[in-house]
Amino acid sequence: MPELRRDPITGRWVIISTDRARRPVDFIRQSVEIKDPRNCPFCPGAEGKTPPEILAYGRKNGNRDTPGWSLRVVSNKFPALGIEGSLDREGEGLFDRMSGIGAHEVIIESPDHRLTLATMPESAIEEMLWAYRDRALDLKNDRRFRYILLFKNHGEAAGATQEHTHSQLIALPIVPKRVREEVDSAKRYYGEKERCIFCDIIRQEIETEKRVILNDSYFIALAPYAPRFPFETWILPRQHSSAFENMPTPHYSSLARTMREFFARIDSALNFPAYNYVIHTSPVGEETNDHYHWHLEVMPKLTRVAGFEWGTGFYINPTPPEESARFLREATIR
Amino acid sequence: MPELRRDPITGRWVIISTDRARRPVDFIRQSVEIKDPRNCPFCPGAEGKTPPEILAYGRKNGNRDTPGWSLRVVSNKFPALGIEGSLDREGEGLFDRMSGIGAHEVIIESPDHRLTLATMPESAIEEMLWAYRDRALDLKNDRRFRYILLFKNHGEAAGATQEHTHSQLIALPIVPKRVREEVDSAKRYYGEKERCIFCDIIRQEIETEKRVILNDSYFIALAPYAPRFPFETWILPRQHSSAFENMPTPHYSSLARTMREFFARIDSALNFPAYNYVIHTSPVGEETNDHYHWHLEVMPKLTRVAGFEWGTGFYINPTPPEESARFLREATIR
Repeated sequence: MPELRRDPITGRWVIISTDRARRPVDFIRQSVEIKDPRNCPFCPGAEGKTPPEILAYGRKNGNRDTPGWSLRVVSNKFPALGIEGSLDREGEGLFDRMSGIGAHEVIIESPDHRLTLATMPESAIEEMLWAYRDRALDLKNDRRFRYILLFKNHGEAAGATQEHTHSQLIALPIVPKRVREEVDSAKRYYGEKERCIFCDIIRQEIETEKRVILNDSYFIALAPYAPRFPFETWILPRQHSSAFENMPTPHYSSLARTMREFFARIDSALNFPAYNYVIHTSPVGEETNDHYHWHLEVMPKLTRVAGFEWGTGFYINPTPPEESARFLREATIR
Repeated sequence: MPELRRDPITGRWVIISTDRARRPVDFIRQSVEIKDPRNCPFCPGAEGKTPPEILAYGRKNGNRDTPGWSLRVVSNKFPALGIEGSLDREGEGLFDRMSGIGAHEVIIESPDHRLTLATMPESAIEEMLWAYRDRALDLKNDRRFRYILLFKNHGEAAGATQEHTHSQLIALPIVPKRVREEVDSAKRYYGEKERCIFCDIIRQEIETEKRVILNDSYFIALAPYAPRFPFETWILPRQHSSAFENMPTPHYSSLARTMREFFARIDSALNFPAYNYVIHTSPVGEETNDHYHWHLEVMPKLTRVAGFEWGTGFYINPTPPEESARFLREATIR
């Protein structure tokens, strides 16, 4: 008998197939292969092929936009939003619009074309997290922005157009709907109980253990109770923390270690799947609060989404999270 | 300069690229081809390959599960939910679950393997709409169900596993999140203004004309103001109507005509795209109301969704709805 489960934060119900549960071998998918560094605009020596760099780490001497960097941030060559101009808001009868002001940046995480988050040194992942922070803090000075969206598309099936390892940042004059819903729901819960709902979930998950994938000093990786997708995973700070960019220094290495370990495990268990991740954090101007708990949501691309999910917000997940957590706990890293 | 637009019903903001707008020729996609009727379990003569029929139209004499039908409804062979059992609800600490009770049915819309909604006679589409109604009304007698979800996946890229033209019905003990949000938002709007928000939108769209695709006696096809996907389209009754299954008899032929015309136009303009559609209607027990306006949402599958959309509820749409409406108005039907 399948089960209907409710996500306590968003209120979304999902169908979890518990009878004919799909195991890692049952998913048909393309493995992500890193093929060809030729003509790669993100490789050292090709700095002229990207817009000018906004930030670089590791270059000891030498000019901007030359090799020698260990991490590099540039504007997206095909930005979804424009950085110049004022934020004009306008009504059109019933409708509302504003000018598409925003920043769209690319974080090139390593000079080495062949590496991924599963194979990079932990120190490189830590550098990437510092770059996320540096860019978020800088963009928050721009009063037009309400949310700094940090995400990664890994593999063509997940929407990546370049195979060289990179993340993206979009600074927005609005708060994305899903984040707004989560923050508002967590605020209502806090109003009733004087507790953070994410802290409550972490406490319960550590007690029952069955959906815990990894548990490091400062971070925990969980399969959520009502995941929309097979092997969906949340990585959260174990102690309450409302904004990614305010993470204390010792946390960086713990998060880098957890991420590397997690991505190595999904590569092993799921044979190098494509995936997306997104950081959910408090909106600009609401960074310090007791109700919202920032986290990373990882969604491996294993199933073709049938389409009616888009139209209904209703999902069928063929793998119970207790199973996906167990597969990832038991995975041996090659 | 791109534009941020807000959907007045869901409150969702989307980015609309207005500069480098993508026209129909710019989308890379696979055309849906109807290839092979061999071994098709939905063709006449193969009735034994499906679960026993629940409903059939057009069979003059002859037994159940034999040829001679013009439309046939069967249970899904691989149902997402189980029909037998009681609806047990249970808490697990913070979490809520219930048994996965539901109906999952397949509506085989025509005996002819080669037809689609763009090529079927209007009378066959009308029959399909009557079958939607008959099954919805029957399932609403089951007190366990709160929502009757009617949808169609057309083409492999949209999740269809059979190419023979068919729709699906899922009866659910919960209301899908997206529908619940729309109904609640429409109710708030009505509470403030004593008007249906969809009726207001239809009035404004008929006046400005630029997003209207088709306008028949009882139905209108619109490109919504803030669509998530290129060529997303809503088909709505022009007069207020809160539940699909209570549609008055003369409306069936008008909706069938509008649907056939619309799908013929997207086949022509977009070269036989895959698509999904979903009917949004009032939940069971709230059918008659002044605030919610049932409609059909069509989403052609033209772009690969990059993935961060799943994690944020935030969308980038490369085609303004004014453009998509114009392309579809100007399309010549082959």
